[in-house]
Amino acid sequence: MTSLPLSDALFALQRATPLVHCITNYVAMNSTANCLLAIGASPAMLHAPEEVAEFTRLASALSINIGTPSPAWAEGMQLAASTAQESNTPWVFDPVAVGATRYRQTLSQTLLTYQPSAIRGNASEIMALAGLANAGRGVDATASTEEARESAIALAKRQGCIVAMTGESDFITDGTQQWRITGGHALMPRVTTLGCALSACVAAFIAARPEAPLAATATAVASFAIAGARAGQQAAGPGSFQVALLDAFYQLTPEDLDQFTGLEKA
Amino acid sequence: MTSLPLSDALFALQRATPLVHCITNYVAMNSTANCLLAIGASPAMLHAPEEVAEFTRLASALSINIGTPSPAWAEGMQLAASTAQESNTPWVFDPVAVGATRYRQTLSQTLLTYQPSAIRGNASEIMALAGLANAGRGVDATASTEEARESAIALAKRQGCIVAMTGESDFITDGTQQWRITGGHALMPRVTTLGCALSACVAAFIAARPEAPLAATATAVASFAIAGARAGQQAAGPGSFQVALLDAFYQLTPEDLDQFTGLEKA
Amino acid sequence: MTSLPLSDALFALQRATPLVHCITNYVAMNSTANCLLAIGASPAMLHAPEEVAEFTRLASALSINIGTPSPAWAEGMQLAASTAQESNTPWVFDPVAVGATRYRQTLSQTLLTYQPSAIRGNASEIMALAGLANAGRGVDATASTEEARESAIALAKRQGCIVAMTGESDFITDGTQQWRITGGHALMPRVTTLGCALSACVAAFIAARPEAPLAATATAVASFAIAGARAGQQAAGPGSFQVALLDAFYQLTPEDLDQFTGLEKA
Repeated sequence: MTSLPLSDALFALQRATPLVHCITNYVAMNSTANCLLAIGASPAMLHAPEEVAEFTRLASALSINIGTPSPAWAEGMQLAASTAQESNTPWVFDPVAVGATRYRQTLSQTLLTYQPSAIRGNASEIMALAGLANAGRGVDATASTEEARESAIALAKRQGCIVAMTGESDFITDGTQQWRITGGHALMPRVTTLGCALSACVAAFIAARPEAPLAATATAVASFAIAGARAGQQAAGPGSFQVALLDAFYQLTPEDLDQFTGLEKA
Repeated sequence: MTSLPLSDALFALQRATPLVHCITNYVAMNSTANCLLAIGASPAMLHAPEEVAEFTRLASALSINIGTPSPAWAEGMQLAASTAQESNTPWVFDPVAVGATRYRQTLSQTLLTYQPSAIRGNASEIMALAGLANAGRGVDATASTEEARESAIALAKRQGCIVAMTGESDFITDGTQQWRITGGHALMPRVTTLGCALSACVAAFIAARPEAPLAATATAVASFAIAGARAGQQAAGPGSFQVALLDAFYQLTPEDLDQFTGLEKA
Repeated sequence: MTSLPLSDALFALQRATPLVHCITNYVAMNSTANCLLAIGASPAMLHAPEEVAEFTRLASALSINIGTPSPAWAEGMQLAASTAQESNTPWVFDPVAVGATRYRQTLSQTLLTYQPSAIRGNASEIMALAGLANAGRGVDATASTEEARESAIALAKRQGCIVAMTGESDFITDGTQQWRITGGHALMPRVTTLGCALSACVAAFIAARPEAPLAATATAVASFAIAGARAGQQAAGPGSFQVALLDAFYQLTPEDLDQFTGLEKA
């Protein structure tokens, strides 16, 4: 295969407007909801152990992000993840700053046991998570791109899931195939929680095309690459960039994805 | 009466800049605060049982939204609502997704006992709440517009409060009079938590004109209809829409409301 | 000294991109993170007692804001503040609405014992905090500008820290020197949590120039005055103001601060 069918997932998402249950960090909530709505999905955010499992059963997908964890939220995350696993609901894990504290490492190890459909993180996070999955060891912050790539593939194989490692260029693997996506804009790291929003969009796209999770994940990543590049052309800084990015998500069409040239085998 | 005086409440709000105590969901906090500030009110957000009642006594109005509930927050909501009831402070209830989980249903039933001045929700939420107030039964998601309308009137009568049911067109009743408001823009459902912000604005307008809660509620709803329509004319998508909406709230005048043609008996 | 060197701190910040650990209120989180990123710092937000101290040790500075406190958050704040004190990490305290409830007063008194590097608040907050530090008494809301000024100086002396009191004009003191900054725009109070974001930026600038905390604090305040004035020239209301403000932070240069004329002895 020399390409992946990207437009199908956007077409399906725009038709189905999947309900994405998000348990995410406080910083990301508003911007994640707005990204999902702009791209055509339907967000819902709730987390309390008292109700979370009941809601996960109603949702088309679940997205869990550990950016601002605490014990009650961790309990809600576990209930939601186990419910998603039981009901075959696709779910995406975003291990924010997993290398930074032991609390995140323990929580992440627990969440991995519920078998996420996809994991989305930056290189440090993917390497830290691969290290945990592997032998619980620490992370070499000076690791090379090659090591990061091997970590992502190993994590995808061990977990039987998609891994999307994003940064200046993005790397996506199911443990067998590897793909690289280029695009986006230099202002993207100057806007908070775009990665968190991307993780929730991965969940939305997998909900729209559960039979093709690798292509669906690539569609989410490519959508950010396309919309980010367009927003960057109109932006004078991170304020106008955010505005233009939401507009670009709203204007994105399956044709845009058909014409995308930033996807290649890696 | 063939109309309601809408401009008085905006005039009064802009003079008084009422302090609106909001206990709302995490997703809505920032955008709700910005809508209140843009329209001329003064927001304050705090929720802890340790301090919430002390603060409600200082506020001109209270707005409670159950979008992301948990036990400590539910306790704070009850303390704030009972304080508002005791001190005759107007308070508005926004029963987000009350039909979705039993936890929300129980919490909503408790909050209704503190007699909100107004309830603001979409058709599903108003019908679910009317069902709870009625006999605790479930909701028929395929209910007709006529059933939604009857639910809103029944809820308003039973609770002795204003009910504002918003959607493509908006319906407002005190159980005796019924009004319809049309306006707004198709991009509004593509921006998160505008309904939540509207509920807080209803509280602000009732604080400004407590002697006329029906007209005050209609003023809040009409303000969103007018500002939404104006923002839509300038927007290329939900990003530029949000920016233009805040600007339109800031520019709104009592004359705009005098000239509004979207209000009619329903 | 007839001036303070402002450009050095921005130059240093843009080179070092200091990691600022923020424990702030829910309303301010997203906008604070975006202000920090736009100006060139790196934000991180987490609060749980289970991990907070471990993270404070990694950060270049800490910013604590009590806007939406609760017991678990208060515990996290104390752990972070005591860790910052032990490790000589600069930290900034923003005593939001400290005069409004006894809970905030008690929490603030505790946090003051960990010796913040700087305190940033409006006149009411600084006076309330000075009253607590002094004898635990209440605040006269009708206090004159002169009284506010004396409170700020007394608080700075007692705590051995910088105090920045912001409003229509801003007043900065280390207990010995006093400086006034003018600038900004009338739309600034119509945008939520800009003061909260400023406090986090004070932390970022002190992290960049720990040897000159007074000048670093003045640089943060001056940056808001300059960027606010520029954003106001382009804004039609608080929506477009927010967008232009983030762009202005991103475009701010050390030369802008060298040419700033709004700083004077007070």
